[in-house]
Amino acid sequence: MERTIGIIGLGLIGGSMAVDLKRRGFATRVIGVEKESINASAAEKIGLVDEVVPYEDCIAQADIVVVAVPVGAAVRIVCDVLDRYQQTEAKDRIVIDTCSTKEQICQATHYHPCRGQFVSTHPMAGTEYSGPWAAMPNLFDGRACIFANSEESSPKALRAVEELYDALNMRPLYMNATQHDVHTAYVSHISHVTSFALALTVLDKEKDEKHIFDLASGGFSSTVRLAKSSADMWVPILTQNRDNVLHVMDTYIEKMYEFRQAVDDYDEDKIRQLIEDANRIKKIIR
Amino acid sequence: MERTIGIIGLGLIGGSMAVDLKRRGFATRVIGVEKESINASAAEKIGLVDEVVPYEDCIAQADIVVVAVPVGAAVRIVCDVLDRYQQTEAKDRIVIDTCSTKEQICQATHYHPCRGQFVSTHPMAGTEYSGPWAAMPNLFDGRACIFANSEESSPKALRAVEELYDALNMRPLYMNATQHDVHTAYVSHISHVTSFALALTVLDKEKDEKHIFDLASGGFSSTVRLAKSSADMWVPILTQNRDNVLHVMDTYIEKMYEFRQAVDDYDEDKIRQLIEDANRIKKIIR
Repeated sequence: MERTIGIIGLGLIGGSMAVDLKRRGFATRVIGVEKESINASAAEKIGLVDEVVPYEDCIAQADIVVVAVPVGAAVRIVCDVLDRYQQTEAKDRIVIDTCSTKEQICQATHYHPCRGQFVSTHPMAGTEYSGPWAAMPNLFDGRACIFANSEESSPKALRAVEELYDALNMRPLYMNATQHDVHTAYVSHISHVTSFALALTVLDKEKDEKHIFDLASGGFSSTVRLAKSSADMWVPILTQNRDNVLHVMDTYIEKMYEFRQAVDDYDEDKIRQLIEDANRIKKIIR
Repeated sequence: MERTIGIIGLGLIGGSMAVDLKRRGFATRVIGVEKESINASAAEKIGLVDEVVPYEDCIAQADIVVVAVPVGAAVRIVCDVLDRYQQTEAKDRIVIDTCSTKEQICQATHYHPCRGQFVSTHPMAGTEYSGPWAAMPNLFDGRACIFANSEESSPKALRAVEELYDALNMRPLYMNATQHDVHTAYVSHISHVTSFALALTVLDKEKDEKHIFDLASGGFSSTVRLAKSSADMWVPILTQNRDNVLHVMDTYIEKMYEFRQAVDDYDEDKIRQLIEDANRIKKIIR
């Protein structure tokens, strides 16, 4: 079966999808759209896509359009793609997003006459790097992919997108957009914020970068890794998911204060209890 | 040259040292002391040491004694070993500690008549696991080893211990105990505290552990990894290095508040600036 996949945004997520969908035979042709000309040249040169094409051509040619850009822009693009599907009566075409926040994009599309052709997904994979150079094969293997408000997609569109993520070896999870945003704030967004704050703290206290370099153990590097994540991606996530993020930040600050108080009091029993409570994460995360 | 190394505490650090010092020919014989009988049997069974021996025998037989136990116990043991060297006039023997805090152990030994036979070190390597099962070859390769107040050790003892860490492929760094405790609080201890607080937050907010398991991306796992670290090790570190730890926690809490305020205000410029400032860590940590 001939199938053209169009990827809008040839960064880490879009580029990695492009590679595996082609390599694994899900797509016979992969075309890409990339507004940064340096990234566009890189994506063609690396061979992430068969061709970089203008936006309009991508919408007109692709059976499935994957919108893999930061969340603010994604909302506008998905709505525009659905408008074009409506205008051209392209009833068999499908658009998906890959955003880390789901509530706003699901709200914005909810009443669109072509809503059934949109499948809102969040493939939970990534690294702290971005751009076409960060794209890699097998990025998604074994990870979870969330389908948000999937009952609003047409069964046919949903099935096609399930097959797409199956080709990427992802585990499907279904939840509504509101739940999604709560859970990702609690599990994913907060860990980015704590890493950013850690990097800011260490850079503030250690004016001499050589000390950081010399003393950084594997543990510090692992904890601060996410602080390398790009502002382009994270500013819109944190503002779109503001209320949930604030809520979990407040809980986090409380826990830090509790810890601080125990250290301040030399309260060994309390510190031990907090650490042992935290150790319960061992049972959940390998 | 015949050389017996005695390791007190056959956990991650002691056990990993035992393996590589023997394997790489620095030690002809490695004996160990381990007060937990389960760990002692495991260490013998795994083959970390040639023999587990009573404490007194270890001090009497080992050319170099490595004290690799949590910091509170280490202070007592190092002082006791030096007392025994004095009583038996064992002038050529050497004792080293491997503690993550240096000020207290250096203070406690400062006036000891055998101070020259003590070399205070902090090999900056490890994982979040503990016990003899966590020991592994090559753990120390390429990492930094701090020598604290090395001018108080005899040149001969210092040279022998430099050779020991050279056999472990560690990069030596020299600093005084006070500087050490400040810098490790800023770079290492704070990242453990932020991980513990993150685990506590996520476990508190996500009552359903399945959500954590399903939604934990590589990023979350990496950031929360240190929260698996043991209370036995970290309670004494955090209390011994209390003042420095409190100081850096306060800065950290300030940064979190700054971030929180920017998110609360939907202040995209400020969030972007904080993230881009945090991104500077990229230049330092690979």
